[in-house]
Amino acid sequence: MERSGSNVQMPFKLHTAAMHKAQDPHFSERVRASFARQEAMTLIGAVMPVVEPGYTEIHLPFKPEITQQHGFVHGGVVGMIADSAAGYAASTLTTAETEVLTVEYKLNLLAPADGQLLIAEGSVVRYGRTLIVTRAEVFAVKNGKKTACALLQQTIMSIHGKKEPAVKT
Amino acid sequence: MERSGSNVQMPFKLHTAAMHKAQDPHFSERVRASFARQEAMTLIGAVMPVVEPGYTEIHLPFKPEITQQHGFVHGGVVGMIADSAAGYAASTLTTAETEVLTVEYKLNLLAPADGQLLIAEGSVVRYGRTLIVTRAEVFAVKNGKKTACALLQQTIMSIHGKKEPAVKT
Amino acid sequence: MERSGSNVQMPFKLHTAAMHKAQDPHFSERVRASFARQEAMTLIGAVMPVVEPGYTEIHLPFKPEITQQHGFVHGGVVGMIADSAAGYAASTLTTAETEVLTVEYKLNLLAPADGQLLIAEGSVVRYGRTLIVTRAEVFAVKNGKKTACALLQQTIMSIHGKKEPAVKT
Amino acid sequence: MERSGSNVQMPFKLHTAAMHKAQDPHFSERVRASFARQEAMTLIGAVMPVVEPGYTEIHLPFKPEITQQHGFVHGGVVGMIADSAAGYAASTLTTAETEVLTVEYKLNLLAPADGQLLIAEGSVVRYGRTLIVTRAEVFAVKNGKKTACALLQQTIMSIHGKKEPAVKT
Repeated sequence: MERSGSNVQMPFKLHTAAMHKAQDPHFSERVRASFARQEAMTLIGAVMPVVEPGYTEIHLPFKPEITQQHGFVHGGVVGMIADSAAGYAASTLTTAETEVLTVEYKLNLLAPADGQLLIAEGSVVRYGRTLIVTRAEVFAVKNGKKTACALLQQTIMSIHGKKEPAVKT
Repeated sequence: MERSGSNVQMPFKLHTAAMHKAQDPHFSERVRASFARQEAMTLIGAVMPVVEPGYTEIHLPFKPEITQQHGFVHGGVVGMIADSAAGYAASTLTTAETEVLTVEYKLNLLAPADGQLLIAEGSVVRYGRTLIVTRAEVFAVKNGKKTACALLQQTIMSIHGKKEPAVKT
Repeated sequence: MERSGSNVQMPFKLHTAAMHKAQDPHFSERVRASFARQEAMTLIGAVMPVVEPGYTEIHLPFKPEITQQHGFVHGGVVGMIADSAAGYAASTLTTAETEVLTVEYKLNLLAPADGQLLIAEGSVVRYGRTLIVTRAEVFAVKNGKKTACALLQQTIMSIHGKKEPAVKT
Repeated sequence: MERSGSNVQMPFKLHTAAMHKAQDPHFSERVRASFARQEAMTLIGAVMPVVEPGYTEIHLPFKPEITQQHGFVHGGVVGMIADSAAGYAASTLTTAETEVLTVEYKLNLLAPADGQLLIAEGSVVRYGRTLIVTRAEVFAVKNGKKTACALLQQTIMSIHGKKEPAVKT
């Protein structure tokens, strides 16, 4: 995609407070604990500072180890945080005994991930008992300016009655 | 996707007036004329009552001829109007000499297309010279209630310097 | 997508005889009967001449009523037959009491649908109890030459214990 | 996606020798040099042992640092190598002065990435001057058995007349 002279428009507000209700009163602790067990997130340096019902944010500070050949953050890493932010948004709405799996996602890269910080904002579009449709946008923050760099649409599946193990299996 | 008891959330406003500027002062006539030449749209009974910069709506009244085996509007027909609404949204922003082609799209079906009227709302997310990223939502209107039934994310390509023929080639 | 001078490669054979086993001995009659109830397929003139375990073909002869503004078959119509061929491929592998729903699909348009006949070849990639991943390719046949014009990747959901009504509800 | 008792079918052979012709006689060195500059690939431990015209393979040995909360390789990491294998497959077919960008991709996760080694096989489906459509499959190799765990469909854009910088910009 040619990137100079582009005109990125993100007209829609993804998240509105109190739009979703959590079933699990401890959803925030549960989601944060699961995120903490994802060693791949530690490897790239991602954190999850925002966890609300139907919404999460993953933040990723720039570091040279996560770049592609031009020094921008690797598109695959952008996909990782978009996928995870959207998937954990789904997880905030399930019961404590439910596990979520990514069935599939589609990612459009809109602009290079060029900035000191990436922010992936994941949100639930449609909550169903078995399938949850989610979205995520990824923004690059450079010198105080926030530019959309990726847009994701995702399908999540709930597996009921399973509990995430406290230790890896 | 289980459909009963679902909880469809469309938190984001896709379209905001004056968000995009049209390059072609006659974009509306141009887009409407192109739509009128799509015989497939006539076949299913679709019309395009709204054409704004970066945004179009396609409306499709229910008729038995466009149904699937359960009597709802066929998912493929839902895809047709979503694809077209988003593609024409892109077309509103190009020059008069530019033609747009759908490169690809991804469609999530959120609920059965059950209603007296379907409305596909297409909008431009990111406008670039060669590639334009768009979205569409399709709503089913039943007894005055508007329910989201599909969500599309699409990539459009601009072909510059070509003019749509007045007659089909 | 620029289309002249293109070099379409379809290296992979989608279907191999006896690759899948049908659970329902009457899958062919069941799938054909469901297809026959899709009035949208009748409207566009599509037929389903091939139904095998994990595989179906939908054929669509050209007619002016299904074209876009350049006289080729409308991309949305191409999507309709791709979606349906892949979805029915999934249906061939389920029990008689199972209903399938399209969760989502992604379609790349590779070349204009320019020919006397379109052939959509749908096949199952991964069969699971709840979710079935499928693919489809659509070819345009022009003067005896078969050219790939679309590629679809799809997720199907099985709803167990429901039976398609003999009459529409 | 429920994973036990699944029946993954990968009926199609993605790659056939001599199916594509490289324009750049030095495509292999060029692609390998670009891959070597992707620090994100070094971070996760991925290598690219196979580079052929229209086809590449990325191999990723298991290590705990790339896992999700259940100890399997993170889906985002699976996406990273699928995206890159397919993108570099496109790059093998361009001129030396052309740069490729991922426009978008869609990934279905078919099974957990459970094994000692992941292999992403990327291949070109349709080569066009501006847009290249590609695919990738990712397999998990466990105790000598190769199981498909992801399927990707991707759109790549060529930017002509640019040369990848020898040093990052």
